[in-house]
Amino acid sequence: MAPANERRAQARGLTDRWQTALTSIAPNTILIRGYPVDEMMGRLSFADAVYLLLMGELPSPAIGRMLNAVLVSSLDHGVTPPSTLAARNVATSGAPLKDCVAAGILAFGRHHGGDIESCMKFLDAGLTLVRAGHTLQQAADSLIDDCLREGQTPPGFGHRIHTRDPRAARLFQMALELEVEGEHVRLIRAAERAMDARKEQFGHYLPINVDGAIAAISADLGFEYELGNAIFLISRLPGLIAHAHEERIRQTPMRQIDPKDHDYDGSQTRRLPETRK
Amino acid sequence: MAPANERRAQARGLTDRWQTALTSIAPNTILIRGYPVDEMMGRLSFADAVYLLLMGELPSPAIGRMLNAVLVSSLDHGVTPPSTLAARNVATSGAPLKDCVAAGILAFGRHHGGDIESCMKFLDAGLTLVRAGHTLQQAADSLIDDCLREGQTPPGFGHRIHTRDPRAARLFQMALELEVEGEHVRLIRAAERAMDARKEQFGHYLPINVDGAIAAISADLGFEYELGNAIFLISRLPGLIAHAHEERIRQTPMRQIDPKDHDYDGSQTRRLPETRK
Amino acid sequence: MAPANERRAQARGLTDRWQTALTSIAPNTILIRGYPVDEMMGRLSFADAVYLLLMGELPSPAIGRMLNAVLVSSLDHGVTPPSTLAARNVATSGAPLKDCVAAGILAFGRHHGGDIESCMKFLDAGLTLVRAGHTLQQAADSLIDDCLREGQTPPGFGHRIHTRDPRAARLFQMALELEVEGEHVRLIRAAERAMDARKEQFGHYLPINVDGAIAAISADLGFEYELGNAIFLISRLPGLIAHAHEERIRQTPMRQIDPKDHDYDGSQTRRLPETRK
Amino acid sequence: MAPANERRAQARGLTDRWQTALTSIAPNTILIRGYPVDEMMGRLSFADAVYLLLMGELPSPAIGRMLNAVLVSSLDHGVTPPSTLAARNVATSGAPLKDCVAAGILAFGRHHGGDIESCMKFLDAGLTLVRAGHTLQQAADSLIDDCLREGQTPPGFGHRIHTRDPRAARLFQMALELEVEGEHVRLIRAAERAMDARKEQFGHYLPINVDGAIAAISADLGFEYELGNAIFLISRLPGLIAHAHEERIRQTPMRQIDPKDHDYDGSQTRRLPETRK
Repeated sequence: MAPANERRAQARGLTDRWQTALTSIAPNTILIRGYPVDEMMGRLSFADAVYLLLMGELPSPAIGRMLNAVLVSSLDHGVTPPSTLAARNVATSGAPLKDCVAAGILAFGRHHGGDIESCMKFLDAGLTLVRAGHTLQQAADSLIDDCLREGQTPPGFGHRIHTRDPRAARLFQMALELEVEGEHVRLIRAAERAMDARKEQFGHYLPINVDGAIAAISADLGFEYELGNAIFLISRLPGLIAHAHEERIRQTPMRQIDPKDHDYDGSQTRRLPETRK
Repeated sequence: MAPANERRAQARGLTDRWQTALTSIAPNTILIRGYPVDEMMGRLSFADAVYLLLMGELPSPAIGRMLNAVLVSSLDHGVTPPSTLAARNVATSGAPLKDCVAAGILAFGRHHGGDIESCMKFLDAGLTLVRAGHTLQQAADSLIDDCLREGQTPPGFGHRIHTRDPRAARLFQMALELEVEGEHVRLIRAAERAMDARKEQFGHYLPINVDGAIAAISADLGFEYELGNAIFLISRLPGLIAHAHEERIRQTPMRQIDPKDHDYDGSQTRRLPETRK
Repeated sequence: MAPANERRAQARGLTDRWQTALTSIAPNTILIRGYPVDEMMGRLSFADAVYLLLMGELPSPAIGRMLNAVLVSSLDHGVTPPSTLAARNVATSGAPLKDCVAAGILAFGRHHGGDIESCMKFLDAGLTLVRAGHTLQQAADSLIDDCLREGQTPPGFGHRIHTRDPRAARLFQMALELEVEGEHVRLIRAAERAMDARKEQFGHYLPINVDGAIAAISADLGFEYELGNAIFLISRLPGLIAHAHEERIRQTPMRQIDPKDHDYDGSQTRRLPETRK
Repeated sequence: MAPANERRAQARGLTDRWQTALTSIAPNTILIRGYPVDEMMGRLSFADAVYLLLMGELPSPAIGRMLNAVLVSSLDHGVTPPSTLAARNVATSGAPLKDCVAAGILAFGRHHGGDIESCMKFLDAGLTLVRAGHTLQQAADSLIDDCLREGQTPPGFGHRIHTRDPRAARLFQMALELEVEGEHVRLIRAAERAMDARKEQFGHYLPINVDGAIAAISADLGFEYELGNAIFLISRLPGLIAHAHEERIRQTPMRQIDPKDHDYDGSQTRRLPETRK
């Protein structure tokens, strides 16, 4: 019988020991997946170390660069996402920064952030068709036709502001250049063609958004569904921190936060110095 | 009059617009601190981008390397921190990954994680003495003597397992090599000497721990107190994710989690390949 | 097209006004569902007021007594539920009480607390059979046989400690006496008979637990599924508060919390005074 | 030495057993503070049971009625409190109800909800003066003069909408009628007179708000500071639930929530039936 409720907590596993394969601790020694953390410091980027911790092995340099780019892609998206507004509403009450951040993370719901996992499953459903003999494009067409029938936007597609999501385009370009592109990326590109061919039925053109790009690339890198969402979570955390902190230092407490009423008064548009290219 | 309570929420700022300096959004354009995010991707490490978002300007290459090392240093510390146990207790109930992570973040309380901010304030109190004419060592001695009088462990010092925290040692070595070491680092090293000279009074030797090293380096890099804690939060998030995920895939739901009963069954000790050095 | 992700946040409802039917606020006047809150105070019990807020109308005296009993039933269940352990692990870090409570609430996952909603759906599936002509017992038998086939414990059944859950028994007795018992309660009692007749197949006897009783009664009272879980949440909140508070005042910070190692040192068994009966 | 950080988690309390005095669990028996929970059900109101769990003894009937009124007083305050907006912003993302509620609770910060604890401390500071020989009015005057000097609103005073908070007035009236009024209530009434006499200096009249009334009454009932905030938390939880639920059933997902744009479309003003009086 599957466990059903809290009452199961009473007698479960009271005696058996349990295992962990992540990190081992001994006096003056911290081994993450077997590597001394002090040896990792200065030699692995944070993104490399995240990959090691979540996947169990070091990433190749190409995968490390790809994951750095994925983590940069969703760093922040301004003041209007619900997660950012949840964090700012907690901040205006005078709560500690960590509370603002936790509230923001709770707003990564089915319609926000959580979309990566559903897109990964969507693509794997298509690849099952490919295993069964369909071509990549046939599989993509069938996935999109199913969405049309159910009146659903395919997960990973559509943007109210961006008609061409600059983050998705850049991620696909890097995946190609770094030769980490796999069948999930190829399938979602085929699905994009299928969407383009059906834009009248969908009412308007729905481009691949950054969630779709992260989903396809995370799947090609071998991340589990649940960890696809985790990648977005790691990427956006600094954005939640920055907004909560800005709310506390620039605004009066207990204000009514209207997402429409904000103005941007930060740095003007600028380019990275040549040395960064 | 300072705002006092929820009733202030009624009439506050109902009309005035508000400002943000972090990110500007326009169709097909996302500018973080003025830089196009798609231009940042592939050119900045995640740590570089975090620094840009939180501080407003690009880090120097040395600061970027230092921040990557700081973020790697606290990636995970095994199953026993309360934040990890809170995340695992939420995971065993079958809650979504984001809920486990949010609960873990809430456990960064006064005694855990939050210690970085208090250590930054502790060091600034010492530097005020230096501004007033004390030598660095005199200031350090006076800080430590105050703690002794109050029977307090100085923030950033002491470890029940590590007599020499390998992460702190590595961070200080890198700060020196990268020439980002400043007066906060020099002061905490002086405080370490003061602790050594008073180890009998403290009962036993209390080394600088990783919080102390992150606090001193974050302060030398110019981070505000609140953002010092945020650095730890960004660093530990993947650890919370990894433990919540491992709990879900390796353990039975609704189990009683006893921190003592765990065994490590992961990779044996290994070294980074030469190519990583 | 259904909304898919954060990008939808950009343009949604920027102009349209939105409605709420819960509470209206004017200078010196607070109306909850139309009733002045100061008139409610002293005349409605908290449970009556909760019913009014969630359901829109005043409860009958019988329903008010029933809801008070439901809220008392799950007030606390000792130190071993994961929600309680999550709250205590946050408390040991020195976090504020509200953070401990929020973490505890996050641990009401699929296997814990959330079970009420699934049991309400389970019972409604049975009542659909009744509408289609089955007798109550036939519907109950078919529900239980489905669970047997899938190797699932029926939601709302089973307890590792209690072979007869005293809370469930008392709730059903009161529902009968107060004449608020309806078809959901009658169906779950029929399902209990079906379980009894199949106890060999299930390996052992699985009684109705308190979640099952709350689910059946909440459904008979007309609560929506989501609000069934909410009733449990309101009931258990004081338990989370009491454990977090006790952790802070009786235990040392940053301790390793082993659920097995606790002893009860509170009041001995006692009976309510006659005046309370 | 006081514990300082996560590293203390390693070796703390690995062997010693720990105690709890709240609830004891045995097969088919649940004793809360020594009373069988099934005996409490139907005989104690939820408010009575909350008092028993938090304070360790049964409340007198008068205290039980008082606590029911206190819990009803802050049940909801419309859509504009930051806690409500945090819960609605999480709800619009499609997150589970419990996540919305947890985020709302996190918004009970220093300026919102948390005010009760600070008001209790404020009143106890005044009673220390009374113990030292001041009259109640002298103590109140001195408390208020201190606030004036520091340009602070006294905790528990002031309301942007209500010039006479109907909840505070009703709570004080009931405390008098039920004869549970004590020195904290008398002191805050004296402080109100002191505020009235200094309304010019404060710029305008700042009445006692509901937090102030709950703080004074909770203190007279003997609740600890931390539990004063907990009373507000229990009272407001159903409000957070009702708003999150209404957001989910009445609004489109991923909308931009502007606190200014809402309209009330619920029940018109009505009075309780005579039978409730």
